[in-house]
This record gives sequence, C-alpha cells and structure tokens, in this order.
Amino acid sequence: MINQVVDPGDHVVDATVGNGHDTVYLAQLVGPHGRVYGFDIQQSAIDTTTAALKAERLTNQVTLTHAGHETLAAVIPAEEPIKCAIFNLGYLPGGDKNIITKPATTLTAIESLEARLAPNGVIILLVYSGHPGGQTEAQAVLDHVEHLDQHAYQVLQYGFINQVHFPPYLIAIQKR
Amino acid sequence: MINQVVDPGDHVVDATVGNGHDTVYLAQLVGPHGRVYGFDIQQSAIDTTTAALKAERLTNQVTLTHAGHETLAAVIPAEEPIKCAIFNLGYLPGGDKNIITKPATTLTAIESLEARLAPNGVIILLVYSGHPGGQTEAQAVLDHVEHLDQHAYQVLQYGFINQVHFPPYLIAIQKR
Repeated sequence: MINQVVDPGDHVVDATVGNGHDTVYLAQLVGPHGRVYGFDIQQSAIDTTTAALKAERLTNQVTLTHAGHETLAAVIPAEEPIKCAIFNLGYLPGGDKNIITKPATTLTAIESLEARLAPNGVIILLVYSGHPGGQTEAQAVLDHVEHLDQHAYQVLQYGFINQVHFPPYLIAIQKR
Repeated sequence: MINQVVDPGDHVVDATVGNGHDTVYLAQLVGPHGRVYGFDIQQSAIDTTTAALKAERLTNQVTLTHAGHETLAAVIPAEEPIKCAIFNLGYLPGGDKNIITKPATTLTAIESLEARLAPNGVIILLVYSGHPGGQTEAQAVLDHVEHLDQHAYQVLQYGFINQVHFPPYLIAIQKR
C-alpha cells in the first residue's frame, strides 16, 4: 500500500522511527527530491536511525526530530501536503517496554496529519495493544477513526482475529 | 488473494453463485483440468450463471447445484481437497431481498469446507449485514471464526470501519 501511494518527491512522516527500518524505506521511496520527517522520544532510536540512513547515504532527504510525534505541527509547515505517515503504536520491540506511545499524544499527531494529508494520502497505524495501557490507546484511536467523515476519508482495518493475546492490526486512513 | 492461492487444476467452491461473476472468474483460474462447485438456492441464479459460463466456454469445469451450500458435503467427496471457497453473505444485489443466507446453513457449509481445505487453502466470506437478519448472521460467523485454532488457521478481517449503515467486510480463513 505504501509503495502504491508514495512517489519520488513526496513528503512523508515516520511518526515513530524506532530502529529506523521504516525511515530508510520511506527515504528510498521519496528519493533525493522528497523529504521524510522522523520523530522519536528516545535518543537511542534517533542514533540508530541516523546510522542506518548514513549507511544507505540517505541523510539528505530526512529530517529527524528528537521529540514526540505530537510536536510535528511545530516542525512541518501547516500548508505542506503529506503523502504518507506511519505509526507503530505500543513500545519499541527489543527496547524499554515502559516507554510506550500514549493516547493523547498519538491523537494529537494523527489530527495534525489529517489536516496536512494530500489527496489519496494515507496514515498507517500498526496497533500493538498487548502491553499495559495498550488497550486504552487502541480504543482511543478506534473511537477517533470510526467517526471520521466517510466522505472525506476511507478508514480500513486489517488484522488477524483468531489469535489470543491481542494480535497487532493495521488501520489505514486514506484521504479522498 | 484468490489468484495468489488458486492454481490451474485446483478444486474450488462458489458457495453463492448469484450472478455468476465469481463462478466465471474461478473457472478461468482453475482451467480445464480444475473444477468449480457452485451452489445457489435460486433457479434464476443457476440459469444466469449457466449462460455466463456457456458464453465463456467454461461449462466443462463447473458443477452447478441448485441447492443451498449446506448440501456441499453431499456433493463434494470428503477426501477431496478444496483450495478456495467464496461466500457472499446476505442477499443477491438486484435480486429478492427476502432471500438471504442464514446462520445455520452458512456455518454448516463453512465447517464442511474447513474439513476439506487444502494446506494454504482459503475460505473467503464477503459479509453484508445491513439487511434484517444480517447482524445475527454476521455475529454467528464472527463467533465461529474468532475461535478457530490459531495453530491450524489464520483468520483475517478486512474492511472499512468509518462507514455508517453496516459496511460490508471481508473475512479470510486460511489453513496453515
């Protein structure tokens, strides 16, 4: 879905850079004339991602911000169209399980992105909810996206439904 | 998903042939050495589908049965592997809205197919639930599939979640 939506030159957001895999992937898709805005509250994530981008010679087209994604409205100009944004909600796999995304800041970031989303642009949320606080955040996100105007956005949910222990699922918000 | 799973020579099921579009598509995928078993309780659906198959010269690889899909265990040998089955749950668009699929017969058919499903084979359910009785059937199907053993089957749900009036969604049951 991401590579169908993102074209060279587009501006996109990695709202939770974590280990940097998504950031590198997005930087490759937008190319030297595009821009990736990456956010993370953990310095280790910023460092890991910087190293990954350097190794691929992709630093020029990426702006990393060591702050939560709720600050993106201060980093990205209000009139700048965003083609794609990716969130991994929950904690960083292999990292500190006490550092998790939170409902209020997640929703602030999603709403800032909705205002900037280009036509056919997508916000992709990979929702992990098995950790303490995860169900609360997942429910807050669902409550928000289920009420988005169907004439302005298509919201798709995609996930496995026969797994115990809160399997992750994907939500995609696409602007019409 | 269907064309990734179904190969020439496979045996597949169209559990609700309706206007015959899916039946024709499946017959093309399985080819002259495969077999499509189609079921419908409405003679008009059988007639329309027969005409569509004749027009495409596909009648040889299709067995149509004018009976509900709950009879498939009597039509398809118990040991015959099925690679794919498609259900459109609800009523036939453009047809009589009083003729609908029902929870008991739908579940009988799904369970018969689970027993015959080939490895990596899929049962695809397109669930329409906005009509009277639709919610009851959808809930019965969800209750069943959510409890399928995750070591034996993957169950995916896929659909739009911000639409009013019970948007259709897709459930895919894949055997491991």
